[in-house]
Amino acid sequence: MATDISTLGEFGLIKHLTEHLESTNPETHYGVGDDCAVLNYSNDKDILVTTDLLMEGVHFDLTYMPLKHLGYKAAMVNLSDIYAMGGMPKQMTVSLALSKRFSVEDMEDFYAGLRLACDMHQVDIVGGDTTSSRTGLAISITAIGETEKGKAIYRHGAKETDLVCVTGDLGAAYMGFQLLEREKEVYYNQIETAKTDAERMAIAQPDFSGREYLLERQMKPEARRDIILQLREAGIHPTSMMDISDGLSSELLHICTQSHCGCRIYEERIPIDYQTAVTAEEMNMNLTTAALNGGEDYELLFTVPIADHEKITQMKDIKLIGHITKESLGCALITRDGAEFELKAQGWEALKEK
Amino acid sequence: MATDISTLGEFGLIKHLTEHLESTNPETHYGVGDDCAVLNYSNDKDILVTTDLLMEGVHFDLTYMPLKHLGYKAAMVNLSDIYAMGGMPKQMTVSLALSKRFSVEDMEDFYAGLRLACDMHQVDIVGGDTTSSRTGLAISITAIGETEKGKAIYRHGAKETDLVCVTGDLGAAYMGFQLLEREKEVYYNQIETAKTDAERMAIAQPDFSGREYLLERQMKPEARRDIILQLREAGIHPTSMMDISDGLSSELLHICTQSHCGCRIYEERIPIDYQTAVTAEEMNMNLTTAALNGGEDYELLFTVPIADHEKITQMKDIKLIGHITKESLGCALITRDGAEFELKAQGWEALKEK
Repeated sequence: MATDISTLGEFGLIKHLTEHLESTNPETHYGVGDDCAVLNYSNDKDILVTTDLLMEGVHFDLTYMPLKHLGYKAAMVNLSDIYAMGGMPKQMTVSLALSKRFSVEDMEDFYAGLRLACDMHQVDIVGGDTTSSRTGLAISITAIGETEKGKAIYRHGAKETDLVCVTGDLGAAYMGFQLLEREKEVYYNQIETAKTDAERMAIAQPDFSGREYLLERQMKPEARRDIILQLREAGIHPTSMMDISDGLSSELLHICTQSHCGCRIYEERIPIDYQTAVTAEEMNMNLTTAALNGGEDYELLFTVPIADHEKITQMKDIKLIGHITKESLGCALITRDGAEFELKAQGWEALKEK
Repeated sequence: MATDISTLGEFGLIKHLTEHLESTNPETHYGVGDDCAVLNYSNDKDILVTTDLLMEGVHFDLTYMPLKHLGYKAAMVNLSDIYAMGGMPKQMTVSLALSKRFSVEDMEDFYAGLRLACDMHQVDIVGGDTTSSRTGLAISITAIGETEKGKAIYRHGAKETDLVCVTGDLGAAYMGFQLLEREKEVYYNQIETAKTDAERMAIAQPDFSGREYLLERQMKPEARRDIILQLREAGIHPTSMMDISDGLSSELLHICTQSHCGCRIYEERIPIDYQTAVTAEEMNMNLTTAALNGGEDYELLFTVPIADHEKITQMKDIKLIGHITKESLGCALITRDGAEFELKAQGWEALKEK
């Protein structure tokens, strides 16, 4: 018997493989199911661990992604998971599998990006593994961080009447990806039709002027350390939190499912950058869909008690987009014209059939 | 400029990329350069972290490696690194990148092996990442463990006159690998010359009887938790330790380089199983070379003060193979006939030109 993995999808497969796992060590406080595992090795701190495996051709495309940016982004993706638990990252291990086409200088570029990200976030690179690959590049990073004891913020803590907040703006990384993919196709078409070397040399580099923000969001995302510090300073303790890697809808459904509640969010409140809107229009794509399902923004999604309403509305770069409801009310998007739609996860799920 | 990575090799590349890394957090006690990083999050414990990235076609061959064994071995390889610091493993994260040819049942098999290994070693699986791969299978595991504060055993602690010890026997995993590779070639040759389906069906499975131990050593290695417990019970604190993954010579040179000392080990004392010897003879391979450079045995190599001589010689499954000398004397193998050879690392180094 052979069941195709696409029948379960990424989340389904993980659930299937890990659902009967039981922790036996007192040093394990929380295992599979959140942005990080939470470990209990210290009396005054909780230790956070998260890991990501990035594969060439699936998670990144070296046609347009410089290795320095890739190193930076690979680090950020993991740091973001530590912040998503309300923690501060401290260490990282980095494993690479390289095919023969990579040079020492390529790896120096990758490490330059990695180290830049780590320096900015005060993270030490403490180990890893470097080996060869028969095919593309594989990157596996594990980040380790800490929170004060008992202060880790999980996905399962949202309560009815809590406010739903997001940081920054959404959909820009996805539109950056669309732009890069479009220009890549244009470039390959030109290469194919060019008949002479002179014609090939004359192929213009794509012009991204005015769209720099979108490219930056795709190629150089920033993990929101600033928001965690800001929330701590304001004395706000989110009841639930996660980072937006797969898209707002997908993440919000995770929070609601794990918190056994519903939510209502408002289309008009979803923060979207001007360039994202212009590019969606130009590419004839639905802007709200891009913002809801785009993913890779690495912004934070969190809920706070309604008592924090005043504090939260005064904070920079945080937008209140809706509220948590009873579970029976489901998860709904209220459109600009007042219509109500059920939220669905159409996020980028690598293993699911499209 | 593009420098081929093979000019540096795996260890050279890691050294090149990480040599100027400096730790900035007090929570980082020891970073790159040993079997594990050592983290300082607790007042009474040191936390150990190790990670490995295993790539299909480089580290394993699914032609003969069942997925259940692969899961088991992937776990053991990492647990072995925790034991190699004198620690006890507690948690593990497991990331997988899968190509389309794998089924849900394949992954159940992999996880069955993984969980068996974790259950035997009282380790909790606390997280990971499951994603798709354009090509083969990639496995990234991070193991986390602990030692009493200040009791981690590094590679750099060996002292002149210390005794050099190894556990179990060496070279068997390598001979198992040679056997499997030979039979694989025989099988493919038969497939190629077979003209009909009937002929193809009639191809015999290889007969490994009498060689089960070698296959088991290659396909189902055991991390030496028992040795760590035995050493603790006997009150023996090794001055240096590592696990033998790349081969005895390579690991011993790591210990001597990092400890700034030399060593003399004796050919006749290297523990070798009968099946290993018979198979090396049959395959016309040098037995000592296989034992020195074979790798993948996942036994422990360690040094103890000479004062522990009596204790250590009475312990089960531990063999004294030589002693530590002044650095200026170099690292030497004394053969059965009394000749002296300089030890060289010819271990399996995936990125180095052969």
